[in-house]
Amino acid sequence: MPVNLSLPETIHAVPGLRLSATGAGLKADGKLDMVLITLPENCTCAGTFTQSASRAAPVRVCRSHLADNHGKVRALLINSGGANAATGSQGYANAAESCRQVAQSLSIPTESVLPFSTGVIGEQLPMDKISAGITRLVDTLGEDGYLEAATGILTTDLVPKIYSAKLPLGSDEVTITGFAKGSGMIAPDMATMLAYIFTDAAVPAGDLQSLLDAVVRKTFNSVTVDGDTSTNDSCVLAATAQSGLQVGTASEHWSAFSAAVESAALFLAQALVRDGEGATKFIRVHVSGGDSEADCHRVGMTIANSPLVKTAFFASDANLGRIVMAAGRSGVDFDMGRLSLQIGDVRVLTDGEPDPDYSDDRGQAVMAATEIDVAVDLGMGDCHWTTYTCDFSYDYVKINAEYRS
Amino acid sequence: MPVNLSLPETIHAVPGLRLSATGAGLKADGKLDMVLITLPENCTCAGTFTQSASRAAPVRVCRSHLADNHGKVRALLINSGGANAATGSQGYANAAESCRQVAQSLSIPTESVLPFSTGVIGEQLPMDKISAGITRLVDTLGEDGYLEAATGILTTDLVPKIYSAKLPLGSDEVTITGFAKGSGMIAPDMATMLAYIFTDAAVPAGDLQSLLDAVVRKTFNSVTVDGDTSTNDSCVLAATAQSGLQVGTASEHWSAFSAAVESAALFLAQALVRDGEGATKFIRVHVSGGDSEADCHRVGMTIANSPLVKTAFFASDANLGRIVMAAGRSGVDFDMGRLSLQIGDVRVLTDGEPDPDYSDDRGQAVMAATEIDVAVDLGMGDCHWTTYTCDFSYDYVKINAEYRS
Repeated sequence: MPVNLSLPETIHAVPGLRLSATGAGLKADGKLDMVLITLPENCTCAGTFTQSASRAAPVRVCRSHLADNHGKVRALLINSGGANAATGSQGYANAAESCRQVAQSLSIPTESVLPFSTGVIGEQLPMDKISAGITRLVDTLGEDGYLEAATGILTTDLVPKIYSAKLPLGSDEVTITGFAKGSGMIAPDMATMLAYIFTDAAVPAGDLQSLLDAVVRKTFNSVTVDGDTSTNDSCVLAATAQSGLQVGTASEHWSAFSAAVESAALFLAQALVRDGEGATKFIRVHVSGGDSEADCHRVGMTIANSPLVKTAFFASDANLGRIVMAAGRSGVDFDMGRLSLQIGDVRVLTDGEPDPDYSDDRGQAVMAATEIDVAVDLGMGDCHWTTYTCDFSYDYVKINAEYRS
Repeated sequence: MPVNLSLPETIHAVPGLRLSATGAGLKADGKLDMVLITLPENCTCAGTFTQSASRAAPVRVCRSHLADNHGKVRALLINSGGANAATGSQGYANAAESCRQVAQSLSIPTESVLPFSTGVIGEQLPMDKISAGITRLVDTLGEDGYLEAATGILTTDLVPKIYSAKLPLGSDEVTITGFAKGSGMIAPDMATMLAYIFTDAAVPAGDLQSLLDAVVRKTFNSVTVDGDTSTNDSCVLAATAQSGLQVGTASEHWSAFSAAVESAALFLAQALVRDGEGATKFIRVHVSGGDSEADCHRVGMTIANSPLVKTAFFASDANLGRIVMAAGRSGVDFDMGRLSLQIGDVRVLTDGEPDPDYSDDRGQAVMAATEIDVAVDLGMGDCHWTTYTCDFSYDYVKINAEYRS
């Protein structure tokens, strides 16, 4: 089961949004596998996408549509029954055709529709099922249905991941609601596998994109399940403007609004890890004392991706030398004589020397917890960074050995 | 069990070498855990060591002794009951003291003794047991005992890994015999976790070091089990000169001799993977069409380390899109429209387009084999590189969750 992850008590609908979900038969078991989301005419929209060189067809179509249409987005079409990656020219044509069909049904430009896919790489989408699915999605659009939409984008995820909050800004308030999917192939590089965050604030498109870029760095780009970056990672932040409240970098509300969007993204990014494939524990890796944030991020991600560190967490085994090993192989050159390590509230190493009060029993007690904080200090500069990961269990192997069967 | 790995029919002793092994009680079960190897006075010796920033104490002592003593090496002392890494100043003092004790017993300079350790990181060596072990090792040195020495350096390895060959050079011949250990924490960076190759050729020290550097790049630095680089990786190539045959870069025999040393290193490097923790398959990843060997190496290692690719191999599942995913996240920027992929003799992608003759049954047939060749062509330049890996099974998690218990 996911580690300490639950649905919000209330899911606040974002004014201006309409959603629908259907089971189009892409998944063998009749589960929800297609989702349509429409946005109002004066909505602004920002997106970040995987930096993988083997980007999927829908990612390439998204980037092209955003460029052709100056960022004006009216609809998001998502399927979770196939990644449409490594599918050649036919795959690209299929992604473009699905946008054309949505656009025709809704009387909007084809370039205002963004397509997203997730699932097995290397298989063509069955276009007859996609077309029939689009028809049903257009017919059933409504203002609720967030839970169904968040469910319809899942693959190996055990649970949907939804964030929802009302943010008071002076005498007004705006809504921020988002959802994400992803459980394996999670080590996002500039965005994660399908995350959508919506608000009814009115935000200039340029400000929205800079905000998303900054937020993604600290959230989706700082989590990992298995170090494998997807071909389909995409993150969208859309502002429907329906609250009438203008929020831009020059506004007095910008910092509160930015922090609220970061909270939403951090919650969803952590949710991916809490529901990571086979996860039984949630781990925060705090790296401080680096010469740059990039160095701290690199050390943190190397620890967070190490199979040996992750199996030790799974076993609740205080084999903490593996954390030192992983830091050492990160490519960041530090002085072992200045390295400090703490796990939970237990000191392990101070300036390279084993702590005299450390005992295996004390380490073991911290490792037995479901949520664990690791603190590494490189003893060099003043920068720090936090990354998030889960442990590595038999079930990770089981899930990924059996995914297609 | 290891994948297609057996001991040589004959282990040729290298003239000039003396060896011994003992169970000093560092391992709980009384197994062999200390090894001593002595080298004759006119021996030349080359070494490469881990580039990890958290290098173990013995690695730091080795580097210091090699520098202080101009590369003159008379003895190698190895223990497999603890890595002596992350052990602070006490750990360094212990490594130095063990060299002093060997030197005193053998009447050689302390700086001519190189120490090596492997095992759990972060625990101090029990020096009383080490001292008693050294006494027994010195008393039992002999000219055979290669199998015992190769066994005495193992940790989670299932079997010893030994290479042995006679190399005819004109009317003469030289012997090349070596052994290595390593099964997990295997993604060597400039050398691997304890590999020793010996020859009775006479090779100038500078030539020997350049040869080792070149060979290690193509062999130990091109294999991976789990992507985790050890704190203790060390590789030694020693030439005892006892054959009387001079072999240097200027000699007519240099290319044959270099190739033979490379064969020894490649055999041992592949042996680490064949006996990789939990391995059930052996996989060669051939990357061609790169702009540089470094790019091909990077793409190959990313594929070879991907947990998703490795679990697909374990499951014999032709989920080959995962190979494309891993290549895409390697950081090497290629054009998906020129990417080609072949598995065994089955074409999967040609210039980004799915092969019309590909079927899941044909892919599955190749994936079911115990040894698998993956060929990726980046469609850019003329460079190529091969890396070696194993699959990722339940047993990897089991072995590493239970290693200390």
